[in-house]
Amino acid sequence: MHNLQTKDQKDMLVSRRYKAENTIIEVKGCEIGGNQVVVIAGPCAVENTEILKETAFKVRGSGAVMLRAGAFKPRTSPYSFQGLGEEGLKILHRIGEEMNMPVVTEVMDSEDIELVAKYADILQVGARNMHNFSLLRKLGQVKKPVLLKRGMIATIEEWLLAAEYILAAGNPNVILCERGIRSSEPWTRNTLDLAAAALAKQLSHLPVVVDPSHGTGVRSLVTPMAKAAIAAGIDGLMIEVHPQPDKALSDGDQSLTPKLFSQLLKELEPIARACGRSIKYS
Amino acid sequence: MHNLQTKDQKDMLVSRRYKAENTIIEVKGCEIGGNQVVVIAGPCAVENTEILKETAFKVRGSGAVMLRAGAFKPRTSPYSFQGLGEEGLKILHRIGEEMNMPVVTEVMDSEDIELVAKYADILQVGARNMHNFSLLRKLGQVKKPVLLKRGMIATIEEWLLAAEYILAAGNPNVILCERGIRSSEPWTRNTLDLAAAALAKQLSHLPVVVDPSHGTGVRSLVTPMAKAAIAAGIDGLMIEVHPQPDKALSDGDQSLTPKLFSQLLKELEPIARACGRSIKYS
Amino acid sequence: MHNLQTKDQKDMLVSRRYKAENTIIEVKGCEIGGNQVVVIAGPCAVENTEILKETAFKVRGSGAVMLRAGAFKPRTSPYSFQGLGEEGLKILHRIGEEMNMPVVTEVMDSEDIELVAKYADILQVGARNMHNFSLLRKLGQVKKPVLLKRGMIATIEEWLLAAEYILAAGNPNVILCERGIRSSEPWTRNTLDLAAAALAKQLSHLPVVVDPSHGTGVRSLVTPMAKAAIAAGIDGLMIEVHPQPDKALSDGDQSLTPKLFSQLLKELEPIARACGRSIKYS
Amino acid sequence: MHNLQTKDQKDMLVSRRYKAENTIIEVKGCEIGGNQVVVIAGPCAVENTEILKETAFKVRGSGAVMLRAGAFKPRTSPYSFQGLGEEGLKILHRIGEEMNMPVVTEVMDSEDIELVAKYADILQVGARNMHNFSLLRKLGQVKKPVLLKRGMIATIEEWLLAAEYILAAGNPNVILCERGIRSSEPWTRNTLDLAAAALAKQLSHLPVVVDPSHGTGVRSLVTPMAKAAIAAGIDGLMIEVHPQPDKALSDGDQSLTPKLFSQLLKELEPIARACGRSIKYS
Repeated sequence: MHNLQTKDQKDMLVSRRYKAENTIIEVKGCEIGGNQVVVIAGPCAVENTEILKETAFKVRGSGAVMLRAGAFKPRTSPYSFQGLGEEGLKILHRIGEEMNMPVVTEVMDSEDIELVAKYADILQVGARNMHNFSLLRKLGQVKKPVLLKRGMIATIEEWLLAAEYILAAGNPNVILCERGIRSSEPWTRNTLDLAAAALAKQLSHLPVVVDPSHGTGVRSLVTPMAKAAIAAGIDGLMIEVHPQPDKALSDGDQSLTPKLFSQLLKELEPIARACGRSIKYS
Repeated sequence: MHNLQTKDQKDMLVSRRYKAENTIIEVKGCEIGGNQVVVIAGPCAVENTEILKETAFKVRGSGAVMLRAGAFKPRTSPYSFQGLGEEGLKILHRIGEEMNMPVVTEVMDSEDIELVAKYADILQVGARNMHNFSLLRKLGQVKKPVLLKRGMIATIEEWLLAAEYILAAGNPNVILCERGIRSSEPWTRNTLDLAAAALAKQLSHLPVVVDPSHGTGVRSLVTPMAKAAIAAGIDGLMIEVHPQPDKALSDGDQSLTPKLFSQLLKELEPIARACGRSIKYS
Repeated sequence: MHNLQTKDQKDMLVSRRYKAENTIIEVKGCEIGGNQVVVIAGPCAVENTEILKETAFKVRGSGAVMLRAGAFKPRTSPYSFQGLGEEGLKILHRIGEEMNMPVVTEVMDSEDIELVAKYADILQVGARNMHNFSLLRKLGQVKKPVLLKRGMIATIEEWLLAAEYILAAGNPNVILCERGIRSSEPWTRNTLDLAAAALAKQLSHLPVVVDPSHGTGVRSLVTPMAKAAIAAGIDGLMIEVHPQPDKALSDGDQSLTPKLFSQLLKELEPIARACGRSIKYS
Repeated sequence: MHNLQTKDQKDMLVSRRYKAENTIIEVKGCEIGGNQVVVIAGPCAVENTEILKETAFKVRGSGAVMLRAGAFKPRTSPYSFQGLGEEGLKILHRIGEEMNMPVVTEVMDSEDIELVAKYADILQVGARNMHNFSLLRKLGQVKKPVLLKRGMIATIEEWLLAAEYILAAGNPNVILCERGIRSSEPWTRNTLDLAAAALAKQLSHLPVVVDPSHGTGVRSLVTPMAKAAIAAGIDGLMIEVHPQPDKALSDGDQSLTPKLFSQLLKELEPIARACGRSIKYS
């Protein structure tokens, strides 16, 4: 059934038929894709130093090992907050250094790759850019890992082929990220497709992480879906946390408070152990 | 956000605002909706006595407490196998008695309710009939529990309101079943929407079960999704098992062998325990 | 490409390979499927004699040749107006007789077929029942034409196979009706799939009509989509008209006023002629 | 209902409440958005000079006034034909000059804008880049018109807001292009959403064109959908034509032969006239 188009699956660089064992990606001493589940957390956007520092301090204390926050924000409307740009990258980089957390942030344009790579440890491709093949190709020439979100309506094959663009251009360090697909359900922002994450693990040797924050858009669903993702066998979680979600400049509805995040981590640990894994702590 | 239409949620019979505590449904000594997770298993269809008996014997041995199999099968083509009808109901009933397992089977037409209720312990409404309001209303007058599958593209609200039809007509014993929604992904038969199952648990007091067999349509995804469903907090699983999936008259691609089913149950137990629950055994 | 499953297309009763020429269905002197485009109009539901009579009088004056209105209404909530039932059927039948218009109305349950067939000239299967195979089979034994709406998310193949259920059971007089599929677009109620209607015409000899009222759910889109449907080559239109849409008990947002309906008919005529057809008038 | 987010619709540059009259965009003497319907045609990709020249000659003879062909091709797989790049742009530009046809071609990366703008008369943003906000912003600084395709699953609001990015950055000359949305229908490549095109015309003053080739992916549906689009009131069509579709390097299944294209144009003219418009000829 699951042939990847144009080539035999065994010839695809992303395929398990090409490379059977899991790819483990190492970022400043933190490994993704191995036996330990990695939790990446942080606010949707870098808003200012204080909020990011407070969030980083708290999520690190609860068990997150990497920090996420956007400096370039893809927003539906040109009149919405667009992110702090390079200023945001600098803040993120500084806090990451202080907290000893590798940082993940989005790059939206091939012209910005060099800039973002200067400050970030992992470069994120957002769902809206998964089909930006020009960006993917250029990320193939970068020496840093890429976290590739699945497109809003991308098939699993398209997602794996988007990763193939990066690998074929020379960068073997791609982390696949399931973040929900658009459906006709109005009560959730997206429909989190955990089966796609599990199938990606079966078909590809690349690490797979899940973003239950964007994947549901509903705070009360983040914890059950994070637990479900662990049970489904994924390698990491990316979770939005904000000290005051109601005042967040973006995505407040889906952000956990530091307290809820702390509780989540406590619930994840026994599930990881029940699956023969553990949560990576710093 | 989540107001159910036309009435305040607190007035809806299905709502947790109307009834805060979980509804626990008892079927021949087996409870659904309580602390123990219930596993329902069996072949897609009643094909003959031998296959059903063999399947029932094996799934019971591995931990299933209820038996499922269709006698009336909703098939896309009029030229496909349509099920054995009343003969199938009789076989199912007899095997259920022999194995001491309550049986679940689908009713497709309001004219058949009396017949199906004579042989079945739980009456299933299939995804294709979730919007068959006439059937739902008549099931409200039946004294047996109803397992209500979510429609192929039904919103969560429509699913809960379909249950409300049954409750409003007098039958409080409804089990909600998430079985995947149709999406544009070709590699899975449906997109299993575990967040919908989790949200249904939050909004309603009714028991929620998940069907990872129809929900994915891919044998290798049944186990990870069953584990994920437990971690997401659902009350039961409905899983297709066939002694020789390649020879099944329907749904062979998604059926587990008895051996895979047995392995699955072993993996579920520690996850249930990690979530403070357990698997119900007979 | 377009093989219908389980049988060669040439063996399918609905297929043009089985029967090349268009099926023309005659209802009380009015033909659907021939060179003349048929317009069916009326309110969503039979609300009372006065409103139906006024609507029928006006739509007939503007060019509608058949009258539509629901007596059994499939409603998402059990607490919404469910239709007048047999009383509604009687009113509809009487007004149809008085106006000399054949009447179309929905049957929701196989138990009601006999009742509905007593009063209606064409029996409608709604989108929510397209997969109610039991209902379809029993409609195969009825001597009156069936208007079969495409399901909310049904594929074209499933739609044609639903028609095959009716033909295979003995009733050759099926009219296919495209009424929009559910998508993630919030500004329209459904996504009207005119290409599906055009493809159904190519693959099947059955008449195809389009319902731009449900197909868009937006009054201002009914006229452009009705015109587009004619240009795409369909055989008829089904349009909701209500003398006071703001006071309609259901579907007011998508109902045309009699005045807008009259304007629409004037715009349709030249397009039909540009396509070598004409609008059927009584 | 139809409020555009974050600003009142009357403040949105794309909105009819901001500017009531149609925007008419003039490209080398050819106007889009006025009373005449414009037909843009050509092969999917620039394959070589001979094929493009032959196609351009034939489509111009049948009534096309603009030429389309891709030099940078967004392909799902990195191993598929990716287009001729600048060499393709040069060929396209030269043929356009010889035939006196303005040329439309896609720009996939903000780094290529200057290059593409050197050769193209209209810069196309493909469906996969509709959410590439960085590209959109930079196209706001270009002096040439932009043809903005709707994203694969974009809502109408997101599509209009993508146009707003371009207008807000300084370029008022945006042509909206509906090209089908992804659905679960396997028999068509996309679901052409003509109601979205009609609604875009109602809500915005910008010209709207329809691409029935990508919008259906099926050759036999291009003609009925092109006719339907005209009847729905759109301003132009973009149609794939290839002298030998079976040998095309991409999109052969949906390309018309020059002969079918010629027949199509003959069928369009009377429909345009029936709608009070005409087809623009050179």
